[in-house]
Amino acid sequence: MKTHTLLMPLDMHLHLRDGVMLENIAPLTAYSFSGAIIMPNLVPPVTSLKDVKAYKERIMAAVPNDYFEPYMTIFYKNYDKAFLESVADEITAIKLYPAGITTNSEDGVSSFDIEKMRPTLEAMSALEIPLCVHGETDGFVMDREAEFMSVYESLATSFPNLKIIMEHITTKAAVEMLDKHDNLYATITVHHLLLTLDDVIGGMMMPHNFCKPIAKRPEDLDALLNIALKAHPKVMFGSDSAPHPKDKKESSGCAAGVFTAPIALQLLCEIFDQYNKLDNLQTFVSDNAQSIYRICPEFKEIILENRPFVVPDNYSGVIPMYAKETIGWAIENVE
Amino acid sequence: MKTHTLLMPLDMHLHLRDGVMLENIAPLTAYSFSGAIIMPNLVPPVTSLKDVKAYKERIMAAVPNDYFEPYMTIFYKNYDKAFLESVADEITAIKLYPAGITTNSEDGVSSFDIEKMRPTLEAMSALEIPLCVHGETDGFVMDREAEFMSVYESLATSFPNLKIIMEHITTKAAVEMLDKHDNLYATITVHHLLLTLDDVIGGMMMPHNFCKPIAKRPEDLDALLNIALKAHPKVMFGSDSAPHPKDKKESSGCAAGVFTAPIALQLLCEIFDQYNKLDNLQTFVSDNAQSIYRICPEFKEIILENRPFVVPDNYSGVIPMYAKETIGWAIENVE
Repeated sequence: MKTHTLLMPLDMHLHLRDGVMLENIAPLTAYSFSGAIIMPNLVPPVTSLKDVKAYKERIMAAVPNDYFEPYMTIFYKNYDKAFLESVADEITAIKLYPAGITTNSEDGVSSFDIEKMRPTLEAMSALEIPLCVHGETDGFVMDREAEFMSVYESLATSFPNLKIIMEHITTKAAVEMLDKHDNLYATITVHHLLLTLDDVIGGMMMPHNFCKPIAKRPEDLDALLNIALKAHPKVMFGSDSAPHPKDKKESSGCAAGVFTAPIALQLLCEIFDQYNKLDNLQTFVSDNAQSIYRICPEFKEIILENRPFVVPDNYSGVIPMYAKETIGWAIENVE
Repeated sequence: MKTHTLLMPLDMHLHLRDGVMLENIAPLTAYSFSGAIIMPNLVPPVTSLKDVKAYKERIMAAVPNDYFEPYMTIFYKNYDKAFLESVADEITAIKLYPAGITTNSEDGVSSFDIEKMRPTLEAMSALEIPLCVHGETDGFVMDREAEFMSVYESLATSFPNLKIIMEHITTKAAVEMLDKHDNLYATITVHHLLLTLDDVIGGMMMPHNFCKPIAKRPEDLDALLNIALKAHPKVMFGSDSAPHPKDKKESSGCAAGVFTAPIALQLLCEIFDQYNKLDNLQTFVSDNAQSIYRICPEFKEIILENRPFVVPDNYSGVIPMYAKETIGWAIENVE
């Protein structure tokens, strides 16, 4: 049977939530990933040294071994330099949300006034703290990411020493931005390498494929696949795996988020194998992230097998993408 | 209190379903409309004289009085002239579905070969039977209607004496087609005068706003509003009200259809009033349809009041659009 080995897989964009959900969900990622960038959009968001230390402790208490590193983040505000210095050792990045743009982002940035942000972003540049950005405007849903490109341009040129990560990119427009500025990077989810809007609302409406940013057009999918499959050195895997209880998804108002954490590596193997690019997967799923973030994850070796795997219908009440469907790769062993 | 009176409102595109759903739903339309074009996409679809007579009887048995006229249709196939002559007196139109494009359309037309359709469409022209069309390709969900315009062009030019109704149009492209061919007409739903894709997936995902064709972009909404508010003589109101049980909507695979029948006139009053075009509503909701279809509906007078009305949270287990929300107009009286 064909197998494929991945070393130190990293999920550079992950939602672990808190409380019982955290306890249920964190072990699934810790099982197959060496580490993950942990998003700070709790309620209230993670914004202090105390918050971030306590959240990290809760995460470590929830995972069954010490071979998993949660790379912590705080929620962007216009922090001063003294504060940033005090938290720099505890965090790997700061996550910026435009206000109200996605789950628990109400306290985010409501206008991109570069001069108001300058002290914070210059301090982050000096301290080498990357800025992770949810790049969407409040415009029409299919245009939100493309409209945000001017903000990326403005941030990239105003702060040339700041590493800026365009999170969970979904468009050809964002792919084309990558090579325009040295300091722009991107994460790409596995679901955005599989879905277009047709898979969300083109047949039946599929709440478990609904996320923000929404999956876009076929030509956008092609652009994302192209850059991921060649493991462009500025792109990293970030699942944006975002669990919600079933009753928040199959509801009259369905929450945004696709839950992929426990099947992400299997799906990535299937996609890269389908295009005969399995040799590039290690770079996409770990090496690029290590270079970009300058991190050295704990050793972990994942062996995947090319055999049918039926995705469980739920994980502790959370419905994964492709629930009950059969995919082509399975995790055989973790060492 | 401000009131507005409508005479003989007509719903020129309605799904009444069958069985218990029919019994629950039909009275809601019969209460406030003089008549409605009844879609034939039952399982199996309505395709014979016997079917259509029996379905009409079931509808009449479900409505509480005789002041409502179901204008019957059959499901388009390449019928011969003798068959069409035999059913002509029992039907008002024939409905064409591309195969598999929406609820219960599996038996529809799988390719638009004009020469194969010619005998049927020429016979329909001679018998003055209008052709109602669900105009979508099987392309990307946001492009399906615009891509279908070439089929409308081909049908309109090949059969100049056939009245062709572009059903439930949702795009600027379809609005622009209306004046290009004398024999093209259109229905517009009330939800497509209110929603864009943002109201379906721009915030939370809203299954009760999910329908086919999907609501489109703001500029499409503007084009639809413009032509409806001026009651362009080639447009008619057709609700496309499409009930599904709640568990088929709030589900891991949500069925397409917005249920508006019991609130359609109230919402139309609100929209037309908001733009100071209430004087055009009678034409949009009845007079144009009478001219286009050459029908003379039973007398019915609906008096609406400009006062807050809380939309019920369900009608016999079917969740309406705007459930539990307050709208600005209510039905005061029906005579």
